Amino acid sequence: MKFGGTSVADTERLNRVAARLIERAKSGDDVVAVVSAMGKVTDDLITQAEQITPSPSKRELDMLLSTGEQVTIALLAMAIQQQGYEAISFTGSQVGIVTDAVYSKARIVRIDAACVLTALAQKKIVIVAGFQGRTLDGQITTLGRGGSDTTAVALAAGIKADACEIYSDVDGIYSADPRIVSKARKIDYVSYEEMLEMASSGAGVLAMRSVEFARNFDVVMHCRSSFAPSDQMGTIVTGEDSNMEDAVVSAVTHDTGEAKITIRGVPDRPGVAATVFDILGQNNVNVDMIIQNVSDAGLTDISFTVPEADINSVSSALEIAMKEIGARTWNIDKDIAKVSIVGAGMKTHPGITARMFKTLADKGINIDIISTSPIRVSCIIAADQTEEAVRALHTAFELDLDD
Amino acid sequence: MKFGGTSVADTERLNRVAARLIERAKSGDDVVAVVSAMGKVTDDLITQAEQITPSPSKRELDMLLSTGEQVTIALLAMAIQQQGYEAISFTGSQVGIVTDAVYSKARIVRIDAACVLTALAQKKIVIVAGFQGRTLDGQITTLGRGGSDTTAVALAAGIKADACEIYSDVDGIYSADPRIVSKARKIDYVSYEEMLEMASSGAGVLAMRSVEFARNFDVVMHCRSSFAPSDQMGTIVTGEDSNMEDAVVSAVTHDTGEAKITIRGVPDRPGVAATVFDILGQNNVNVDMIIQNVSDAGLTDISFTVPEADINSVSSALEIAMKEIGARTWNIDKDIAKVSIVGAGMKTHPGITARMFKTLADKGINIDIISTSPIRVSCIIAADQTEEAVRALHTAFELDLDD
Repeated sequence: MKFGGTSVADTERLNRVAARLIERAKSGDDVVAVVSAMGKVTDDLITQAEQITPSPSKRELDMLLSTGEQVTIALLAMAIQQQGYEAISFTGSQVGIVTDAVYSKARIVRIDAACVLTALAQKKIVIVAGFQGRTLDGQITTLGRGGSDTTAVALAAGIKADACEIYSDVDGIYSADPRIVSKARKIDYVSYEEMLEMASSGAGVLAMRSVEFARNFDVVMHCRSSFAPSDQMGTIVTGEDSNMEDAVVSAVTHDTGEAKITIRGVPDRPGVAATVFDILGQNNVNVDMIIQNVSDAGLTDISFTVPEADINSVSSALEIAMKEIGARTWNIDKDIAKVSIVGAGMKTHPGITARMFKTLADKGINIDIISTSPIRVSCIIAADQTEEAVRALHTAFELDLDD
Repeated sequence: MKFGGTSVADTERLNRVAARLIERAKSGDDVVAVVSAMGKVTDDLITQAEQITPSPSKRELDMLLSTGEQVTIALLAMAIQQQGYEAISFTGSQVGIVTDAVYSKARIVRIDAACVLTALAQKKIVIVAGFQGRTLDGQITTLGRGGSDTTAVALAAGIKADACEIYSDVDGIYSADPRIVSKARKIDYVSYEEMLEMASSGAGVLAMRSVEFARNFDVVMHCRSSFAPSDQMGTIVTGEDSNMEDAVVSAVTHDTGEAKITIRGVPDRPGVAATVFDILGQNNVNVDMIIQNVSDAGLTDISFTVPEADINSVSSALEIAMKEIGARTWNIDKDIAKVSIVGAGMKTHPGITARMFKTLADKGINIDIISTSPIRVSCIIAADQTEEAVRALHTAFELDLDD
């Protein structure tokens, strides 16, 4: 049972989470909780670091940020004990979440959850700090965005749990962001593949890495609300193709957290693009969509999108890349959005892409970059047209909830 | 170089400490810093725990409190790096401060400082979290009161440092608390034995455990001011008998942090006192002074003093002890103080104790309990007479600074 920062934001909510864990344990289940830092704690720690230096060492930043979850696990264990049940907390280091040494976005390489199993056998509720781990030689790392979800899934795999329940302030996965589309519907079942495409294209409820982990280790994920009654069903993510409603498109997603980089005047010779993306990769930048324009007099333009959070890394990487390839200039455009349609049914229904383009064109929305997968089509558009695009697509693909 | 919570209370002070560490490193010394939690951070964490439970599990409290120093070490390392010098931080766990499993007042059993020596060889300033360690099986512990001093001395011993400098907001050890005695004088040199007696009887600058550690491992301690210029000499604590001023009494100390427990109606048979103090010991209560009154009709009274911080443990221990020994009642008196005179010269000068009693008697101050060591005499008096007693003794033993 994983609870995010909002669910444990203050003493009252911690007590509520404690009660929920105890209720579950009393029902006979072995319970492991993974928790994030409380409310705005991580942000506050980052602010403290920024008061000292604009570019803190990532090792020291991980040392700093990992205290956030450590506070939560201790207080949650106390809350459970205060309510009369046994509990024990472990940091990521203690629980044996072994990662690589890429500070601030480390990847889990091994889980040694022996202490969890021992504590469960003693009928204790086990509380584990999400988002963090340690390298083989004991350095503290953090897993980056969505790290607590990944901790939860990895632990669930490590102890062969029946399910990994992800609690948040929403009650499941929706066919679109309900804040934008009032007729969005909750999805009861979704496959790993669809969920991965949704997560990678902006559905914020589950971190993509955690879904990948779940798929690879066959962990059933269950998205539920921290605040709804415990018998309320959320969304279950499994390996089965569970598209029972026979929808061609399952969801419309959007993401305004990316930026578009354009490099101009790139010499159009083989290997140039490889050089650029190799250098970005070495700097741990996750490049998403890429487009290379038609060559003009031996020079071409390359555009691609990256998470806005990576822009600092991108800048320093591009300074190197520009010299190496001999390009002229580059610029960043943050005012973009990615809207996507996702659905396992797309594989067997041709013409979906055309319908998407037509829907956007009818609204006068210009498409900048396109990328597709067998079960997803994504378009980069102007940021201020995001909501209009999402609503139009949700209607066009017959996802609107009946009145 | 150990800096307490006041010295690292905010960003500005952290930057000042960073500058000081760099200055020292640039002078050619290998520098290891041990730091406490910033300002009131530990108190704030305790308050958070108390909002959840009046009696938090000590294991979970240690898990919680150890985050305080972890925040400091990360920020201090960043501050040093921002000022252009290399630095690396380690938690107590990482640095190999291995302790027993007595949570909240763990004792160091081993130091494995290999990572410190490696980092020093790389010309990095090493920052270590004070106050904390880990058990052999990886549980996080805290060392209790004065724990950061102890970490510093233990590390200094572990890496065979030339000296262990303890920085605080005072510039050394004084012959009495300067807030009470305006004519108190700074002591330039003091022996481990004297310092131990002073620390155990209320001189707050150094934790007694750290001085014991220093004596056992022959570590030179140097008490200095965080805020004074770096060439200003503080007080050096060494093994040498450095009573150069030939004073019979070196210092007058006082301690208002103890409480007096009196057990009444104790059956006066052999082994009764042993039973009481055995049970207290099992509950990790540090009993200080003990007095047993003359037996009256087979019943006697036992009084002893304990740190006020231990009163909760005392209460639960005494509930057990009372039943076992069949005593009638017990009560706590917090309005007491201990005043002491300390001096290596006392060994060779008889009559010191008598002069102390006479000085107090002349001021109309009643003595409740007395205890002595070869180089210390302590008296329990009423708390509201503390300042008068300290001033009178400071004058009587010719410690007042000349005008």
